[in-house]
Formats: sequence, C-alpha cells, structure tokens
Amino acid sequence: MSAPAALIFDVFGTCVDWRASVARDVANAIPSVDAFAFADAWRGEYDPAMERIRSGGRGYVPLDDLHRENLDIVLDRFGASCADPDALNHAWERLDPWPDTVAGLTALKAGHIIAPCSNGSIALMTRLAKWGGLPWDCILGAEIARDYKPKAEVYLTSCAALRLTPGEVMMVAAHNGDLHAARAAGLLTAFVPRPTEHGTSQTTDLAADGDWNLVARDFNHLAELLS
Amino acid sequence: MSAPAALIFDVFGTCVDWRASVARDVANAIPSVDAFAFADAWRGEYDPAMERIRSGGRGYVPLDDLHRENLDIVLDRFGASCADPDALNHAWERLDPWPDTVAGLTALKAGHIIAPCSNGSIALMTRLAKWGGLPWDCILGAEIARDYKPKAEVYLTSCAALRLTPGEVMMVAAHNGDLHAARAAGLLTAFVPRPTEHGTSQTTDLAADGDWNLVARDFNHLAELLS
Repeated sequence: MSAPAALIFDVFGTCVDWRASVARDVANAIPSVDAFAFADAWRGEYDPAMERIRSGGRGYVPLDDLHRENLDIVLDRFGASCADPDALNHAWERLDPWPDTVAGLTALKAGHIIAPCSNGSIALMTRLAKWGGLPWDCILGAEIARDYKPKAEVYLTSCAALRLTPGEVMMVAAHNGDLHAARAAGLLTAFVPRPTEHGTSQTTDLAADGDWNLVARDFNHLAELLS
Repeated sequence: MSAPAALIFDVFGTCVDWRASVARDVANAIPSVDAFAFADAWRGEYDPAMERIRSGGRGYVPLDDLHRENLDIVLDRFGASCADPDALNHAWERLDPWPDTVAGLTALKAGHIIAPCSNGSIALMTRLAKWGGLPWDCILGAEIARDYKPKAEVYLTSCAALRLTPGEVMMVAAHNGDLHAARAAGLLTAFVPRPTEHGTSQTTDLAADGDWNLVARDFNHLAELLS
C-alpha cells in the first residue's frame, strides 16, 4: 500500500459516541422516556430516510432536516412530547468524541489531510467539530455530493474535491459496510472498531470482516501504523 | 449590529500575501524573469478567467485549473519557459499568511465559526491552510457554489451551508468591492486593510470606501472589536 495523502472519516460512531450523547440530551428534554431507547429509535429512522434520497425518490435534503422529521416520528411512536423539538434536534451537534479521537486526529493531521466523509451536512459537521475539538482540515461528504453514503458518488466527490485519486485517499470507519463501499469506489480502507457504539451488548462490527488495508485498535494506533 | 455567528473571509490578499509568495516560487522556477512582474501578470489573468464563468460563457472550472491555464498565457507573454509548470502552479498552495493572520483567526475561532469564502477551490484552500496553519472550521466559497465572487450566489451558498441567514454572517475582506457585493447579499461586513498586497506603491483599497459594520487595523484588532 502506498501512503495515503488524505484520510477521510466516518463520523457517527467512528469519531463520536452519538448514542450516549443523544441519550443525555433526550434525558434532559424528555424525562418521561427511556433515553437510550429513544436515541436508538431516532437513529433507527436514519437509514430509511436517506434511502428515499439515495434511490431517487426525493431530492437531497440535509441530514439536519431528516433528523428533525425523524424526531417527530419517534416522539409520536413513544407517545411523548417535547417543549422545544428544534432545540433537541441540535443534540446531533453535541456528540462527544471517543477518548482517543482528538489526540489521534491531531497526530494524523501532521502528515495527512484529514476530513469527515460523513452523511452529516457541512453545518452539522462544523458545529460537531467545534463541540468536540475535532481538528479537521476541511469538511467533505454527503453535502458536497448531494447524496448519501454508501453511494459511490459520496466517496468519489470527496476525493475529487481534494484533487486526489481514490487510491490516494483512505476511508476510516468503524463500520464494515462503509469500507466495502469505499473500497468498491477505489479508496484505501482502515477499520477501527467501536465496540460500544450501540451499547455494551453490541453484536455488529465488532471486528473487521474484510481484508482492509489497515486495522487499528483506535485512532492513536492508526496514527502509529501510518507514521 | 448583532454579533455574527460566523465570519467568512476573503483569502488572497486578505489572509495571505499571495504576491511575495508567488514571486518567491517564480524566482526559483524561472530565474530569467522579473518575479514580481510575473506574479502580477499571472494574477492579472485571474479576473478575466473567472468572468467567463460568472457570465455563463463557460461552466464552473476550479481556480487551480484557471491558474494553470493562465500560467501558460503568462509564460508565453514573457517569452519564458518553465521546466515543470504543473509544479509551479502549486505556488498558489504555498502563500504565506500576514503576520497577524494566524493569531487573529485563532482568537476569532474561539467565539465564531470561521471559514474562507474565497474563489479558491476546496483543495486549494485546504492545502493553503495546512501550509500557513490557518485554523478554519470548514471551507466555504466558490466551489460549493460552483460560481465565482462577487456573484451573490457565492456568499449566499456559504451562509446556507452553515444554516445561517446572511445577517448572521460577517464577510471580512481587504477589498471594498468584495464587501459591497457581500453587503448587497445581506451579510455583515468588516474591512481590514492590506496596504502592501500589491507592493509598496499600492494605490487601491488603502482605506474603507463604504460604511462597513467594522473597520479593523488587522485580524487581532478585529478579534478585539468582536470580543
């Protein structure tokens, strides 16, 4: 493998602990519900909402707006109400990084361009970076492609925006499915497990299921492997 | 004036000294020419090249490619040759910040989203930030609008990407023309003079020529005014 010029990252789950962070804000805003169950249900609406856009059934809508629509769906399902759902929707901008994320990204930034390649919008990724101190060089991903991962267009548009070929760019993710799609688009791949993304009884993505270019224990280890 | 949530910046001339930096690389690559005259001529082709795109006579082409085309034009005009014009074109990614730029941006970043709103591409702005240590939160500007300043679309697309209204965003520039266009689009405005951008005999943009929301001596002063 030749050394990548840029590393692009999945964010929800890979860089930040969305579940515990969203549950914290849900617990504050809607004390009557099981906050983790609510967070899981809210996240559960994520993929179906994007699928309508990926399939062409709906034009590009930023994830901020999909989250807001999905919040109404989940409030209804839980029979719950929320004094200020618009404010609660900003929970997705207040997701805490995993303990190694900032140090690992900072080390990787010294030798590489680093950027999110997330389904989150530019606005969402920007505010999330300010919240957690994520030291991105730029924001790539769904919004510049106006489509959603795992469609190849999102990875390819992100590489093109850096004026790099896919073979010069490494996708870093805690989700094997993201890496399968990135590799099919020609990118290098690195897997970093996040075994508690879905809680302590998580059963998915506990280990690499593909022959990825790199498998690292965490972002600090990834920086060591690439140094 | 209400406090801006985000500050977006002109870059060439406002954040970085493109002229001395490009001249340095020209002097190394083409010792036979007057490096400052060559840099001025190269920059002189910038606006006409963008105007074809702004006027609809040509689709969006990133500034990196316009710079490369313009290099051939200027080499021909100077009767000069260059061993590796593609390498010289990367001079635009190696522009030194003004002495106050990094400290001022760092101070401003603590309380605001900061981003370039430049005619440079995402790739160019990303590499320029790494070269000079510009601590942007994200990269906005021409590429996400697929058009060039001073067209309103570039300012408006940059605000929309942050999910902010134009009135929540302040455009910072050393060029009155940029600020006139930004204000016409509804943005707040701040002027910071860069009286040697074009050399010691500069005659343009030495002072504010509009009733801008703020006029600051440099970026550190701007941070004081906004603190």
